[in-house]
Formats: sequence, structure tokens, C-alpha cells
Amino acid sequence: MIDFKKLAQEYQTPLYVYDLEKIQEKFKAYKNAFSGRKSLICYALKANSNLSVVHQIAELEGGADCVSIGEVKRAILAGIKPYRIIFSGVGKGDEEIKEALELDILFLNVESYQELLRIEAIAKDMQKPSRISIRVNPNIDPKTHPYISTGLSENKFGVELEEAKKMYLYAHKSEFLQPIGVHFHIGSQLTELEPIAQSAQKIAEFTRSLIALGLDIRFFDVGGGIGICYAQEKVIDLYDYAQSILAALGGLDVTIICEPGRSIVGESGYLVTKVLYEKYTNKKRFVIVDGAMNDLLRPSLYDAYHRVWFQEKQEELFQADIVGPICESGDFLAKNARLPKMQSGDLIVFENAGAYGYSMSSNYNTRMRCAEVGIKNNQTYLLKSREKFEDVVADELDNLRKNCE
Amino acid sequence: MIDFKKLAQEYQTPLYVYDLEKIQEKFKAYKNAFSGRKSLICYALKANSNLSVVHQIAELEGGADCVSIGEVKRAILAGIKPYRIIFSGVGKGDEEIKEALELDILFLNVESYQELLRIEAIAKDMQKPSRISIRVNPNIDPKTHPYISTGLSENKFGVELEEAKKMYLYAHKSEFLQPIGVHFHIGSQLTELEPIAQSAQKIAEFTRSLIALGLDIRFFDVGGGIGICYAQEKVIDLYDYAQSILAALGGLDVTIICEPGRSIVGESGYLVTKVLYEKYTNKKRFVIVDGAMNDLLRPSLYDAYHRVWFQEKQEELFQADIVGPICESGDFLAKNARLPKMQSGDLIVFENAGAYGYSMSSNYNTRMRCAEVGIKNNQTYLLKSREKFEDVVADELDNLRKNCE
Ligand SMILES: Cc1ncc(COP(=O)(O)O)c(C=O)c1O
Ligand SMILES: Cc1ncc(COP(=O)(O)O)c(C=O)c1O
Repeated sequence: MIDFKKLAQEYQTPLYVYDLEKIQEKFKAYKNAFSGRKSLICYALKANSNLSVVHQIAELEGGADCVSIGEVKRAILAGIKPYRIIFSGVGKGDEEIKEALELDILFLNVESYQELLRIEAIAKDMQKPSRISIRVNPNIDPKTHPYISTGLSENKFGVELEEAKKMYLYAHKSEFLQPIGVHFHIGSQLTELEPIAQSAQKIAEFTRSLIALGLDIRFFDVGGGIGICYAQEKVIDLYDYAQSILAALGGLDVTIICEPGRSIVGESGYLVTKVLYEKYTNKKRFVIVDGAMNDLLRPSLYDAYHRVWFQEKQEELFQADIVGPICESGDFLAKNARLPKMQSGDLIVFENAGAYGYSMSSNYNTRMRCAEVGIKNNQTYLLKSREKFEDVVADELDNLRKNCE
Repeated sequence: MIDFKKLAQEYQTPLYVYDLEKIQEKFKAYKNAFSGRKSLICYALKANSNLSVVHQIAELEGGADCVSIGEVKRAILAGIKPYRIIFSGVGKGDEEIKEALELDILFLNVESYQELLRIEAIAKDMQKPSRISIRVNPNIDPKTHPYISTGLSENKFGVELEEAKKMYLYAHKSEFLQPIGVHFHIGSQLTELEPIAQSAQKIAEFTRSLIALGLDIRFFDVGGGIGICYAQEKVIDLYDYAQSILAALGGLDVTIICEPGRSIVGESGYLVTKVLYEKYTNKKRFVIVDGAMNDLLRPSLYDAYHRVWFQEKQEELFQADIVGPICESGDFLAKNARLPKMQSGDLIVFENAGAYGYSMSSNYNTRMRCAEVGIKNNQTYLLKSREKFEDVVADELDNLRKNCE
């Protein structure tokens, strides 16, 4: 068990804590599930892009799934080899495409016809063909939160099968496009295998049709999205997951790419907060902590649930909302939690906060973004310092002074 | 009309643009509404805390409503006098309270009994009495979005009348607490005057009872919350607003404090974005722009509506969702907008984005936070530079290198 009390004393709160060994274990579990097959596990940086977190994946020779040129550059800084990096996203800018081609990453994942033409034009300008895959929308309901469900026609992601086929044929003929992969991703926090298996079958069949047409498809990218257990969710077994994909592929000779984010880092992260006050209204009990929606947005944005840990006491548990200092009723971290009477200074730790936690954090209410630490071999490492007020306002102050001269 | 095209060329997109003169006009309108009465308009920094924006208020000798010590320090840097600064918020930390006392601001706004005791203890330690007001919860439904409704018993804010009375009496007797104000704030984006008027009456009556008990209440703080017209909302007239508060006060000899945020800066701000691609699925049309939920969270978080401006064309308008590059279905900026066929490079400007826009922005997907510019007397000023990748990752890179040694 992690000694949160000691960490809170040393690094102050709020504080993100990551179990770096667990991150590596989770990564290895993916590798193992696909062992004996050509596979590349591309960790999805969007879940947690701290350089030291990504470095854990680099140490194990993993790849990276990136959605902005910033993420591509992070992956490289963290030690991921460019030929293991893929770049997805519905809105890549010209500069981003150019830099990605210069960096010679594995491929760009294309999300629309217009984008395909942009990439071709830029590749032509640079006289450097671009390796691509196309994100195909299997139009299968992933059964998750609408905000993180991405594989339906009403979503902005990917292209539909017929359109994708036209795009592949166009790319096949182009001098500056090399279609080497097929990609799909149907959503995040998936807890049912069936929609993934169905999608894999549909897209594998599609891939076979491309190969029959003479395309040299070498990568079959099944996206990310495997869920974790926040509350009582049953979790997809990685062995079953791999088997269902292998079954869909039949004998297809392709390298399987997975893009897991949440399932690699989610359970390895904790947000440690300190109780400031308890407060009772006629209707409710509130426990006010020093962490807030700017540190962990998931409860406000997705109504997400995070289990809480606190020091056991010889006292009855009773219901409370755990809220932060931000001046908004939407600033809550847990609703209807069961807690003993809390004292100012007691810790409350939000579990499963490693994914989409710090990466979505902000300076709302001029709150400094907190520090991140990692634990490995019983040692603690600072991965990111708590922000300082002077740094946060430095550029604005420069400009104010210049403009007032 | 602002020349968005020129600004986009000069400063790139996405870009926040503020009309600084309009901000000053809005501030003056509050001042005028209360003219002839002692009043202090404390701009709520949380809405937009850019130092140059706050400086517009300082130039007009306005005050500041702050909810973190960071905001207090911002207000002072921007030129607001400490004796015009108030500090609210449900979760003030010990260090924050201490610094606020050292800075000798007008008063701390207390939100719970426990906090009152903490402030007293810290003030005693410092041998420096603390001026306070207490945020009283009038328990009146403000009829706004539940996330920004704050004046009901089920909200975390303020204290109920009976409890508040006990706290005032306690503070009255304390050597280190000086209760000089009464405060309420029932919610944000209010479009009906009635709940405010009712609250003012209820709290004015309460204030009279405190004065009868011998307390020296000099400030009557009615909070902020006046809404703006995003779509078709009718807007509360500031003259009516002032009259309803004056009526509630009767002859009470107090300084009226208002804490407007959104109504000062909301309509003065624009988020300028550039079209990257258009995309059609079987079910929908998407216009993908280079701004995203990390730049403007309100649509995702509150389902908020922002009117869009675009260059008129000789073409039919038809329906589209305007979405950003972030890999989430929740990343949308407008649903069911009516737009002509858009070309890559066309601008789409989100209006009324001056409040709770940049202040809630983040680096999600390793997107750099964009630049902010201000316009005054037909001149454009850079208020905040676009973030640079090297700066954003500098601290993480330092730590990664140190930890790898
Ligand atoms: C294309 C793509 N790949 C991978 C992921 C990672 O998903 P998760 O974190 O659920 O594994 C996402 C997340 O939205 C995505 O959009
Ligand atoms: C105490 C307090 N005062 C003022 C404001 C500013 O509100 P608005 O921006 O709606 O005017 C808020 C906003 O939440 C608040 O909580």
C-alpha cells in the first residue's frame, strides 16, 4: 500500500501519484495477450502524457498513439521510437502533418477525404510519400458514455466503409500516399467484448477486400478503449480480447496494433487531496477538500465515479458529497460517498485517477496545477512540479507592462 | 466590426479577442446603475482573469471578487487596490487566509463555521484582526443551470440564516474577527430579476436584525450572476436590478457591493477559429475547426450555446455540428449550426466567449493554450502569447532527465 500520508507531507496536496510498476505490468499484459503474433502496443498519450509515464512504455519498447503534434513530440522526448508512433485525430493542421512527415513516424491515421487530399498535397510538396491508415467507422454501438463513444455514424470520427474504400483506392494510386494500415476505434471505457469483436470482424473482412484489390495492408489497428473497474464494472479479459481479434483476422498476415490509454494508466493513478472543512446544510453534508474540478474534471464532465480511500476510524460512516474550493456547484469530486467524521488535514484519495486526470487539468479559478509523482521500486520520483504563481502569470505580466508603457 | 481575418493572420488561430472598451462600458453601466449610492463593483476574476482584462477595471477604480489567493494576487498585479478586494470561496487553505490577511484586503467572505474558526485562529496567530462577511444562503431557486446555481440548501455554498446568525454573534464577540459585511450570491447566468429581489429582501431583513443586535455591518454584497444574451435570453436591466436592491435595503446605510463576472466580460470576447475540414457521414455534416473543448469547455460542460459568426457567402446555409480536433465525441463547439459550405481556412468565430472561456482552458491532447489579444482605440494588443511546446514540457523533461541519471 502506498504511504499517501508521507507523500502528502513531502509534496503537499493536491497531488497525483502514479504506480509506475503497475503501468509497466499493464503494458506487458497487452504484449502477452498477443504473444506469438506480430503486435505493436501504441500507448494512447491522451490518457496521461507525462513524459515519465510515457517513458515507462518506451523502456518496454512500446509505441505511441498521438492525436496532436505535441503528443508526437512528447512521445519522442520520452524515448518512443518514431517508427512506433502513429498520429490520429479528426483535425490535423498543415503544420502538424508536415512535422509528422519530417519526423518519419509509422503512419498518419486519416479521418476524412479532405484530410487525405491535404496529406497528399503536403507530401507532394515535400517530395516524401506519406504512410497512412484510414480510420473506418464500423457503425457499431459500443455501449458507453455518449461523450466517449466514437464508432457510430453520428460521431465525428472515421469514415464509413464505402467512403473508406474509395479513399483507399485513391491512395493506392497516388504517388505520395502509401496506405499500409486499417484502423478503427469505437469508444472508450468499453466493458463489453461483443461490439469490439463485431467491429474487428467487419473491418477484417473489409481489409481482405482491400488486399484482394492489390493493396499492401500490413497493420490492423483495433484502437483502444478497454475499460477499467471504477465501480462494479466487469472488465474485459485481455486474453479473450486478443482471441476475438485473432479469430476475426483468420489467417490475415498483418501486425496488430492496439491503442490502449485508460487501461494502461487509469488504475495506476491516485489523486491525493486534503480535507479543509466539513460543512452541514439543512439538507446535506459536504466535505470540502483542496482538490477540485480543475484537477480532476471527470466527475463534473462525465458524471464519473471514483472510489475514495481514507484513513479508517472507529466511527460510523455517513453520507457526504466531496467537493472542491471552486465557486461552482459543478465542482464536485464524489457524490453520496460514505465517510466517517473528517478532520481538517485528513486525506481523501481518489482512486483510478491515472487516466484523463492530470491531462485534462486547468488553471480555472487561478488554481495552480498540482505536482505529479511516480513510485518505482519503493522510491518516489517527482515527475512534474507544482506550478508557481509567478510562472503562470509571467507572460501576461510582461504584456501588461509592455502595453502600459 | 472587428477585423477577425486580419487578427487571425497576425496572431494565428485559435485566438481569443477581447473588446476592451466594451468591458469598460459594461463596468460603467454597473457604476451608473448605482450612482448616488455608495457602491463598489468588484469584478469576479474567475470569469476572465487575464491581467490586462482586470487592468481595465483597475483603470476605472473598480474592485475585485476573488476565489483563490492566486486571483487576489492577479488583482493586485493588475492594479486593483487591496482595500477593494474581497476573497470568497468554500475552501480557503490556511496559507491563503494568511496571505490575504497580510495583503490587507477589504474582507474575507466566510462560507462555513469551521472556516470562521480557522480564520479567527490564523488572525490571532498573526495578531491581526480579520474583516469578514458571511455568505448567507437565501435558499431561493435562481432558475439557472444546476452546475452554476448556488443559492439553494443542497448547494455547497454559504450558510443558512440561523447558522449565519450564530456565526455573526460569535464573530461580534471575537477579538480577531470584524464582521463588516453580509453576502449572498444565488447563481450565474441569471435571467430573472425576481429571485434576486427576493433574496435581497430576505438578506436585507437579516442584516437589519444583525444591526439591531449591535453589529456594525457596512457592506451589503449582492454577489454577481447577471446573465447575458447567448441565444434569445432576455437580459435583466441594470437599472431595475439596482432599484430592486435599493428597495430591499430601504434606508439601510450600507455600501452595496456587486460581483459581476460574466456580464462584464462575456459579450466582449470572441474565440476565433479556422476551418480545417468539412466532413459528411451518412447521418451528419461536421465542420472541423482548429479550436476545441480545451479552448472553450462551456459547450461540452454545460451544453452551452455560442452564436457563431462567419463570412457571408452567396450560398445556402445548412446544418452542421462544429467540432474540434480532440479525440472525444464530447469535443463540440456548436450543435446544429447553420453554415454555408465551408472551405479550409475560413474563419468561424464564437461570440460571447469572454467569460468562462480562456479561464477554463487546458492542455488536453497536448494542445497549446492559445493567444489572447485585446482591442482598444482601434489598436490591437497582445495580452497573452500562445503557449510554446518547449515551455509546456520543460519541467517534465527536467524531471525525466534527473530521474534517469
Ligand atoms: C483513436 C483513439 N485511440 C485510442 C484511444 C484511447 O482510448 P482508451 O483510453 O479508452 O484506451 C482513444 C480515446 O479516445 C482514441 O480516440
Ligand atoms: C460568489 C460569486 N460571486 C460572483 C460570481 C460571478 O458570477 P457571474 O460571472 O455570473 O457574474 C460567482 C460565480 O460563480 C460567485 O460564485
